[in-house]
Amino acid sequence: MPCILLIYCWEMGSLKLWRRSSEARLKCHTKTKAILREPRGCEQSAPLKRLIGRTHARTRVHAHCTVVGSIIAVSSSLNIGKAGPLVHTGACIASLLGQGGSKKYGITWRWIRFFKNDRDRRDLVTCGSAAGIAAAFRAPVGGVLFALEEMASWWRSALLWRAFFTAAVVAIVLRSLIDVCNSGKCGLFGKGGLIMFDVTSENVTYHLVDVPPVLVLGIIGGILGSIYNFLLERVLRVYNLINEKGYAYKILLACSISIFTSCCLFGLPWLAPCRPCPTDAIEACPTIGRSGNYKKFQCPPGHYNDLASLFFNTNDDAIRNLFSKGTDTEFHHISILIFFVTCYILSIFSYGVVAPAGLFVPLIVTGAGYGRFIGMLMGSQSNLNHGLFAVLGAASLLGGSMRMTVSLCVILLELTNNLLLLPMIMLVLLVSKTVADTFNGNIYDIIMKLKGFPYLEAHAEPYMRQLTVGDVVTGPLQCFNGIEKVRNIVHVLKTTRHHGFPVIDEPPFSDCPVLSGLVLRAHLIVLLKKKVFLPTPVLTGTDITKRFSANDFAKRGSGNNDHIEDIEVTEEEMDMYIDLHPFTNASPYTVVETMSLAKALILFREVGLRHLLVVPKTSNRSSVVGVLTRHDFMPEHILGLHPFLIRSRWKKLRLRPASLTKLF
Amino acid sequence: MPCILLIYCWEMGSLKLWRRSSEARLKCHTKTKAILREPRGCEQSAPLKRLIGRTHARTRVHAHCTVVGSIIAVSSSLNIGKAGPLVHTGACIASLLGQGGSKKYGITWRWIRFFKNDRDRRDLVTCGSAAGIAAAFRAPVGGVLFALEEMASWWRSALLWRAFFTAAVVAIVLRSLIDVCNSGKCGLFGKGGLIMFDVTSENVTYHLVDVPPVLVLGIIGGILGSIYNFLLERVLRVYNLINEKGYAYKILLACSISIFTSCCLFGLPWLAPCRPCPTDAIEACPTIGRSGNYKKFQCPPGHYNDLASLFFNTNDDAIRNLFSKGTDTEFHHISILIFFVTCYILSIFSYGVVAPAGLFVPLIVTGAGYGRFIGMLMGSQSNLNHGLFAVLGAASLLGGSMRMTVSLCVILLELTNNLLLLPMIMLVLLVSKTVADTFNGNIYDIIMKLKGFPYLEAHAEPYMRQLTVGDVVTGPLQCFNGIEKVRNIVHVLKTTRHHGFPVIDEPPFSDCPVLSGLVLRAHLIVLLKKKVFLPTPVLTGTDITKRFSANDFAKRGSGNNDHIEDIEVTEEEMDMYIDLHPFTNASPYTVVETMSLAKALILFREVGLRHLLVVPKTSNRSSVVGVLTRHDFMPEHILGLHPFLIRSRWKKLRLRPASLTKLF
Repeated sequence: MPCILLIYCWEMGSLKLWRRSSEARLKCHTKTKAILREPRGCEQSAPLKRLIGRTHARTRVHAHCTVVGSIIAVSSSLNIGKAGPLVHTGACIASLLGQGGSKKYGITWRWIRFFKNDRDRRDLVTCGSAAGIAAAFRAPVGGVLFALEEMASWWRSALLWRAFFTAAVVAIVLRSLIDVCNSGKCGLFGKGGLIMFDVTSENVTYHLVDVPPVLVLGIIGGILGSIYNFLLERVLRVYNLINEKGYAYKILLACSISIFTSCCLFGLPWLAPCRPCPTDAIEACPTIGRSGNYKKFQCPPGHYNDLASLFFNTNDDAIRNLFSKGTDTEFHHISILIFFVTCYILSIFSYGVVAPAGLFVPLIVTGAGYGRFIGMLMGSQSNLNHGLFAVLGAASLLGGSMRMTVSLCVILLELTNNLLLLPMIMLVLLVSKTVADTFNGNIYDIIMKLKGFPYLEAHAEPYMRQLTVGDVVTGPLQCFNGIEKVRNIVHVLKTTRHHGFPVIDEPPFSDCPVLSGLVLRAHLIVLLKKKVFLPTPVLTGTDITKRFSANDFAKRGSGNNDHIEDIEVTEEEMDMYIDLHPFTNASPYTVVETMSLAKALILFREVGLRHLLVVPKTSNRSSVVGVLTRHDFMPEHILGLHPFLIRSRWKKLRLRPASLTKLF
Repeated sequence: MPCILLIYCWEMGSLKLWRRSSEARLKCHTKTKAILREPRGCEQSAPLKRLIGRTHARTRVHAHCTVVGSIIAVSSSLNIGKAGPLVHTGACIASLLGQGGSKKYGITWRWIRFFKNDRDRRDLVTCGSAAGIAAAFRAPVGGVLFALEEMASWWRSALLWRAFFTAAVVAIVLRSLIDVCNSGKCGLFGKGGLIMFDVTSENVTYHLVDVPPVLVLGIIGGILGSIYNFLLERVLRVYNLINEKGYAYKILLACSISIFTSCCLFGLPWLAPCRPCPTDAIEACPTIGRSGNYKKFQCPPGHYNDLASLFFNTNDDAIRNLFSKGTDTEFHHISILIFFVTCYILSIFSYGVVAPAGLFVPLIVTGAGYGRFIGMLMGSQSNLNHGLFAVLGAASLLGGSMRMTVSLCVILLELTNNLLLLPMIMLVLLVSKTVADTFNGNIYDIIMKLKGFPYLEAHAEPYMRQLTVGDVVTGPLQCFNGIEKVRNIVHVLKTTRHHGFPVIDEPPFSDCPVLSGLVLRAHLIVLLKKKVFLPTPVLTGTDITKRFSANDFAKRGSGNNDHIEDIEVTEEEMDMYIDLHPFTNASPYTVVETMSLAKALILFREVGLRHLLVVPKTSNRSSVVGVLTRHDFMPEHILGLHPFLIRSRWKKLRLRPASLTKLF
């Protein structure tokens, strides 16, 4: 629970910094009355990958549910992690702040309104996810880098600074809490200090001879990681089918996984033989308490069951056992193998049940088991002890599944406090990532694709170089005149689901059709709601903006948007006009229709756009040919329009060899 | 010297990875004959800040000069760092590879030609700088983050991966070298192992009570850091004037600084009293050898001079002494104060002399002295020992001067191997950065501005929102027709210094003027050199490209460009024509002339452009209004065109309060 406190704390801290800059920004808006004309460098958001998707429309309640659910799930010994839910929680709370708090639950303040825009909300969510990792692993720098490498699809130096601030607050609050809890009042919290698995051994010596086994470890780890991703995807597909059938099925599924887990945990230790207690054990052997390394489990006195010692511990303690160096003789290699296989299978089946689950901890446990097993096989041929092999094994499986480099490296560094092992960890991560990348994508992309979020990759596929933007623009274009009839606006809003419409000044307001800008659906709805209508189609100037405050156009909370269906316009008003000019974004990004699709994608993604206007090459036609949105850049859409590209070598050039996947 | 080996090694490693992707890219080019039409997502480069500037045109020889110079300068006790020169060396070697090796010195291979393009060269330079930090501080992750946070102005996830690979290779090679040198054959190299200043003290305990003094430390550190930047700028201005006068003055300046340094180092210890040797000293006291902590310096037997112990050591040993925990009684506070002030002054005066110099180590030494002094003032009121105060002091001064967060944090972590101190270091960095940011910019920006590199900030200044791109386009526009007379091309190339020209198809080749694309000066020169002329102005199709290979258009090495003056065209050829279509980049990025300047800047900077075409709002005029380059976005240029903006509140909003600077 302290983690939730943590995250609340940091939010408060970083908010103050933000407030000033946001206030300044808001002041500019209102003072110049250029509310909508102000350039929005990031008027839209390349989606913050999973998180925006995840937090969408279920933010308010779910932050707490996630934490409670995660606690219950982890304590029920399901093989799932706590990092994912904490990242989710952080992102949810941040998103809640970004949408101006929650009026329903009374948690809203006046100054929160400054964050009601796309950019601040996105930044807050990024920082929230950084705080989640920082709190889950006590790895503040790792958290920042995780947010940078895996979460954010659009990065600014200011954001780096803010995420760092967030992580620093988390680190300091965590430190203070551990300080306060030193007296032992908080149960197991903070036991072991700020570093979760301290494996510092004074003399980590390794030589060039140790590199080949580590390379092998990395290669196998990469293969295991990609198989993990592959299997997880298949299991999630099946789970999705089951979960769609209703709540009863969901709970049934969770129960059966839970029972299966319990059977494994209680049944498998029977396979492991009893081992005599070591004579020089530091702690009591066999242990009876809830945490301890020598579980008795049906063994005669003076003996312990090594497999039970791993299974009947918290995940953290199991990792600590596997990582520690003085335990080379504590485990039998068959037990470690069983442990590894069980964890591998359980972690695949446990993710995706209704409980909030993370992937980090299961992968670390599994990888530690795998690494230790390899270490045992190496035996005395290697200078590295089994604990270090376990750390490297965890790195290889994480690298093979998540495919991050810098952030995983730093997180592992912060988890284990073992700086001397850094070159080895870097090597293993690189090898496993490279090996795994030849088979499939990273686990987050797979999950995101499975959930159907339209996530746009940062790079262009090779076949996009063969197309121009004109080739992918589809559908009838819905434009508005600079001064448009209310009836038309209502009609277009009701019959389409577009979020942006080009505004074109046509005669008699200009000599020839001129692109005036882009108006957003949300803003049109505000205009209809406020009924700023003109009886005749004449230019009014910008005085009309005085009737609005910046807050009217602030970004609404998820699910709080007004719908066109809810707005009542009388028949008389239908024949009136709206002057769209003051509410039009007069600087939309544009590309010529002959622009290469690959280059347009780079513009779209790097600048972080939501709408990209396509203008004609010659001016014979209207001044806009079409509007490109994220969906127009999705490979499914493009290949649907141009099916011949599927078999072209342009596609093959980048796509992974499908033949390998077919083997499974 | 092993560092140079290091950097060579990593280059070899990472090259292999690159080669494959570059080969694939090149193959596409030649096979489709679309050599120049292929979309260049990053056809240009937002400049890799200082490095590109620094390495420009003097790469080949200077890599070695830098290393030799740096070794001589550091060993002459000048108070300068080795990180800067190593970063420079790494970048130089990378740049050398990026321009296809050096034919003059015979270091060129066939496959190196794959890197002869803007993107690969830029990536290589970034990786080279990461390798420099990784080698200088044995901080591989810190090196990657340094390259990310401070070096690269344009970042891709592939680049992160490559930089990480580079750093990993450096780490492993370094590890092996330390292994090899374990026998003591390499002098002081590798002494102390992989971690430079190992200050791990088992029980770093600090409580909330310790936060206020640390905050004060951060605030003063921030102020000191900004004063440092301010003074350094002034000193560099004076040095620039002196250095411009000729080599003799340069050397005279370096000599006088060197003599001044020597006077300080030998004179000041006279001020410090002799102290009796501690009875429980681990090493001999007083020491006579070249490295040792208790220098005798004119003291009676059994006594040592603490100031001499700091001055007469290598910088590394001085830092180690200051950082270590068991030395609380070793130094007198007056000595530490003298040491701090001397280092502060010397480091300002030493940077900028003709020797290659870095800033990291002097700042760490100075900061360590400052932190230790504060620690002494605190005395027993704090739980932190003086060594930890020294670490935090170094962090505060680095943060106050360089203004980085994540990378400094990781570098300090890797330097000191002290993970438990991480929250405190984060806090200090944040505080000192925030305090210092209110006064002036970071040291790198100041130096870069002083050198006159046109570096484009990533953010738009507020006054840019008031302007459109049409407001800053200047000068007569030089366009080419799709099929252009050789005489015109030669004339335009000779009379302008532009690097890109819009190509416009005008009647009779089209009904109305149509923008065909952008052609580069370098490509035009290649065309003139190869004399691909047509006797009459007719369209030829793309067969003409068969006469070229991709290599003809490859990016040349710095200073190797052909000049228009060197190309001889006969009077007869002058009246012939060139079909520019096959050599035109048909997908240039464009903006409408009414686009807000701030948004255009974001497009320019995020996508990383060199030329941005401005197209007219209406088609009455020609199809291009102007070309924007980096210089058009520079604040000096914009404020020169619109001087009224200097005093507008739009400018004040972001600029630092000038009044504070006037105080000095």
